[in-house]
Amino acid sequence: MTAALSTAPQPRIVTAAVLVIGNEILSGRTKDANLNYLAIALTEIGIRLMEARVVPDIEATIIAAVNELRARYDYVFTTGGIGPTHDDITAASIAKAFGLKLIRDERAVDLLTRQYGGPEHLTEARLRMAHVPEGAVLIDNPVSAAPGFQIGNVYVLAGVPRICQAMFDGLKGRLQGGDKVLSVTVSAHIGEGVIAKDLGLLQDRYSDLDIGSYPYFRQGRYGASFVMRGTQQARLEAAAVELRDIIRRLGAEPIDGEPAA
Amino acid sequence: MTAALSTAPQPRIVTAAVLVIGNEILSGRTKDANLNYLAIALTEIGIRLMEARVVPDIEATIIAAVNELRARYDYVFTTGGIGPTHDDITAASIAKAFGLKLIRDERAVDLLTRQYGGPEHLTEARLRMAHVPEGAVLIDNPVSAAPGFQIGNVYVLAGVPRICQAMFDGLKGRLQGGDKVLSVTVSAHIGEGVIAKDLGLLQDRYSDLDIGSYPYFRQGRYGASFVMRGTQQARLEAAAVELRDIIRRLGAEPIDGEPAA
Repeated sequence: MTAALSTAPQPRIVTAAVLVIGNEILSGRTKDANLNYLAIALTEIGIRLMEARVVPDIEATIIAAVNELRARYDYVFTTGGIGPTHDDITAASIAKAFGLKLIRDERAVDLLTRQYGGPEHLTEARLRMAHVPEGAVLIDNPVSAAPGFQIGNVYVLAGVPRICQAMFDGLKGRLQGGDKVLSVTVSAHIGEGVIAKDLGLLQDRYSDLDIGSYPYFRQGRYGASFVMRGTQQARLEAAAVELRDIIRRLGAEPIDGEPAA
Repeated sequence: MTAALSTAPQPRIVTAAVLVIGNEILSGRTKDANLNYLAIALTEIGIRLMEARVVPDIEATIIAAVNELRARYDYVFTTGGIGPTHDDITAASIAKAFGLKLIRDERAVDLLTRQYGGPEHLTEARLRMAHVPEGAVLIDNPVSAAPGFQIGNVYVLAGVPRICQAMFDGLKGRLQGGDKVLSVTVSAHIGEGVIAKDLGLLQDRYSDLDIGSYPYFRQGRYGASFVMRGTQQARLEAAAVELRDIIRRLGAEPIDGEPAA
């Protein structure tokens, strides 16, 4: 008469948020190209991206967002606002968010001196890029030298996609992931409204999985992809077996993965 | 000895936020394609996009984000989560955010009945798409009939880009914009670190404008685009004249607009 204790191990969950900083994304001038890259890369190392925000180059807004996100998630990754011009206010804003002094990092000065070909080319503006919150750890920039930095659980990356992505690739070995979220996708040329009821019941039976339904229109045909996500491969496979049966019972043919483009 | 009162008219500022709802964006499965479209379209009608967020399909998270954003901005546009499957929880979440009942809208039922070819094809799942918070106004969906809706200052759009964009195009005539943010872009094959000081001084002289600096690497050359944004064309043009002079003085040639790709 007592409820059975669940024997399934609790997954180890590690979370993250991405904070995109830049007026140019909000005005529509620039299409963000980093969020999807970071989402995929974080998923691969067992970190769950739980939220993303885009905010303008306004100090108070950046401070509020950083402080909210760093309290809520294990990791925060910011992109943008670390160049040499007056609108690059990320480093100063993050120092204020942490209540830390913004200091000149001598290793960053060395990196910039080499990048620009000697101290005589280190304009005051370029030296801005050597300023980090006191105690920050530099993040390598293999593209153009000017480093990002880490302070606490906040990782500050460049906005230029090539640089942002190279910085992330270089630092990801330092991140501690949890159990990886695996996924299995099954598609079918079937209306979502036809399969929805059975799909909902499948979700109820597999409450440890997240089952998403994403309609598509390809090669002149409507259909949907069903993405099952969870930490246990065996559970995903069991759900996929049931889902293929459901699809066949409804008169369609299951397709493993996404449909041909 | 008294400070002169500013004679510049205060711009009429109307603000918005975009809330992207969907696990698939955060897992990296799907690249968001609506934010940039909405950013550009809102700018064109004089509405300033001040923030964007991406949140997962979790009711409490959606409710918290909607309530925070609708209190802070004039308009909120949500995308995603209004289909017929169990993971489509946007309408119910927004009803809860407003403390309203979720009701079946008979005009939406009519639209869906026609779309699916008769009441016998209206599965329970498809009828989910006819549910809106009590008092909501439907938003037309010219692609696949299932409507979005407006409640208060929150506009609920589909996630599928073609549908999201068609919904927005249809409703935008109902939005009240403020003064439009105009922009002038000047580019140059010049290092940001070389021009940064003069650019900062230019920003100080034109504090009514937002001047952004965006580095690029095109056709084998580094350079930067300088985007000046503000509500008064004359001020933008005056700043552009000064900026072109600055660029020439530093030995480069100003390029109007973005550099050739």
